Amino acid sequence: MDIKDLDTPIPAIDLDRVEANIKKIQSYCDKYNINLRPHIKTHKLPSMAYKQLKAGANGITCQKISEAAVMAAAGIKDILLTYNIIGKTKIEPLANLAKQTNLSIAIDNKVALDTISQAAKLAKKEIKILVEFESGNKRLGVQTTQAALSLAQEIIKLDYLTFDGLMTYPCGEQAGKFIKEAKELFSQANIEINTVSVGGTPTMYSVHKVAGVTELRVGTYIYNDVNTIGSGAAKLNQCALHVHTTVISRPSKNRAVIDAGSKTLSSDLTNPEYGQGYGLILEYPEAVIYKLNEEHGIIDLSACNKKPKIGEVIRIVPNHVCVVSNLHDELVTHRNGIVEAVLAVWARGKTR
Amino acid sequence: MDIKDLDTPIPAIDLDRVEANIKKIQSYCDKYNINLRPHIKTHKLPSMAYKQLKAGANGITCQKISEAAVMAAAGIKDILLTYNIIGKTKIEPLANLAKQTNLSIAIDNKVALDTISQAAKLAKKEIKILVEFESGNKRLGVQTTQAALSLAQEIIKLDYLTFDGLMTYPCGEQAGKFIKEAKELFSQANIEINTVSVGGTPTMYSVHKVAGVTELRVGTYIYNDVNTIGSGAAKLNQCALHVHTTVISRPSKNRAVIDAGSKTLSSDLTNPEYGQGYGLILEYPEAVIYKLNEEHGIIDLSACNKKPKIGEVIRIVPNHVCVVSNLHDELVTHRNGIVEAVLAVWARGKTR
Repeated sequence: MDIKDLDTPIPAIDLDRVEANIKKIQSYCDKYNINLRPHIKTHKLPSMAYKQLKAGANGITCQKISEAAVMAAAGIKDILLTYNIIGKTKIEPLANLAKQTNLSIAIDNKVALDTISQAAKLAKKEIKILVEFESGNKRLGVQTTQAALSLAQEIIKLDYLTFDGLMTYPCGEQAGKFIKEAKELFSQANIEINTVSVGGTPTMYSVHKVAGVTELRVGTYIYNDVNTIGSGAAKLNQCALHVHTTVISRPSKNRAVIDAGSKTLSSDLTNPEYGQGYGLILEYPEAVIYKLNEEHGIIDLSACNKKPKIGEVIRIVPNHVCVVSNLHDELVTHRNGIVEAVLAVWARGKTR
Repeated sequence: MDIKDLDTPIPAIDLDRVEANIKKIQSYCDKYNINLRPHIKTHKLPSMAYKQLKAGANGITCQKISEAAVMAAAGIKDILLTYNIIGKTKIEPLANLAKQTNLSIAIDNKVALDTISQAAKLAKKEIKILVEFESGNKRLGVQTTQAALSLAQEIIKLDYLTFDGLMTYPCGEQAGKFIKEAKELFSQANIEINTVSVGGTPTMYSVHKVAGVTELRVGTYIYNDVNTIGSGAAKLNQCALHVHTTVISRPSKNRAVIDAGSKTLSSDLTNPEYGQGYGLILEYPEAVIYKLNEEHGIIDLSACNKKPKIGEVIRIVPNHVCVVSNLHDELVTHRNGIVEAVLAVWARGKTR
């Protein structure tokens, strides 16, 4: 079956591009002796995780227990959860996960440590703990190297838990400064930092410049998107996921409506320097998807010389490809436009 | 089980509020002799559709074939699809749907008419057609009453298809003007307009003022959200869906991070006059969820006297509740905080 004949809307994945993207970042990591631990949040597919592992990745990264449980059920044996797991409802699911796979978890507070400690005891299984620090993203993470050390000292006291190192996102100058300072402080306290894990596709090819980094976590690179292109980390011909959509109305001269709205593309915008609207239309790059309802995308065609007809199928590179994967129960893979498989996105919707 | 003990993040639905919301709009429609045809896009649940039908609704509204197929499989016998169904891939699924339920479809162009005509022939089953007109939303719909008439005249020529009337969204002054003009024009052409279907929760209690309206389509009223409150169509105590989420980090004095990001709440913002950020926190209404990553919500607490602790569960009224239903495989229903059921959101993710 040719992908031109697919029912729309549907995301279609170019497997040759996927494999080239995997190979490229793995070669970079191999060259600089950095472990690669892909974040599966972008694809949410065990089959893609296995492609990454087969190419040389040292394990995978997940965000939530339920997401990791899908990957563990698929047989993946080394998983990092970059998330504060908190609360009594999490203890049993986390213990079940720990029994199935070798687990590391990044945390920034003692409440998370308490939950994880109870889960590890219940599972009677070692869990490695990393301390997350803030390095410019203003999201979470400990704020000082002293706070990181205090948390590491708490970790060391607990049965079944091992302090493994530090974790942050993204990785720039501020991360480098923190790592340097932490290494000195931890060394004085006789605590070894085995792993320094950093993340982020936009800066992925410069992490070797940050002294002390041992591991790179990246997700978006496998498909790429308008954000990745805008940040300079990929080119348009490295975008592996296109959303196929049909023009369903041409109400006026410069307006088209497509069958892909926020349920298909998400409402994520991009940096205004990277692009306008809700994604880039391959066939009409001058067009702007300026508004989304749930099932409708509204397009301004005023900058287009050629304009699409009703019934025409057009392809969209999403602004943010990870959230697109999350919206779809299934997607199609292809090579050179010939469908290989329809895949259920097993780890989509796993928010807990 | 008390909803305070639920694993997070999860949407929880107050059934008493749902039933009160259903009763209120049904009473309004009964009073003014307007048919009510709820849009199931908000709940995506056959059980909620049955509550609406039992209260007096004349049928339901769906947006896509696959969404309607879930409702038809659940036994619902009167469905309006407010969507241009276009392309050869749609013919067989649409024919299958038409065999299972009494179907009406709203269209604005002849390409859609051709697809639907082929499906009706394949199913050997009548499909009623409404002509969608634009009434201020600048999305789709025919632009003139003459264009509506021309399309109706095409519909009448085709086997298995019946022209049923007009459809629009939203319903304001412009809709009223169009309806009046169309009634005159169609009357001159000897074509009867049986149904005039209008939609939109914000204006739902004023549609009786628009002459000629026979049917109201509304969806959001069943749960309500920040948008509905802002538009004046509901109050906070009529919001039936709350997203339960846990505070997982307090990196600094005025910042909290919760386990609900764009995968849980969506990236939909609201009208700046209605509210700031990505939803209203019931327990901390002064707090602003100013940023979402996929699994993290970042909250500014600077306006709060009391501030939440790590591990605390807080409840969020979403900006746009329909897209929240779409993100979750399951949700919980309760009465007075005691869980009644865990429901699979059967019609979520149905984009085709």
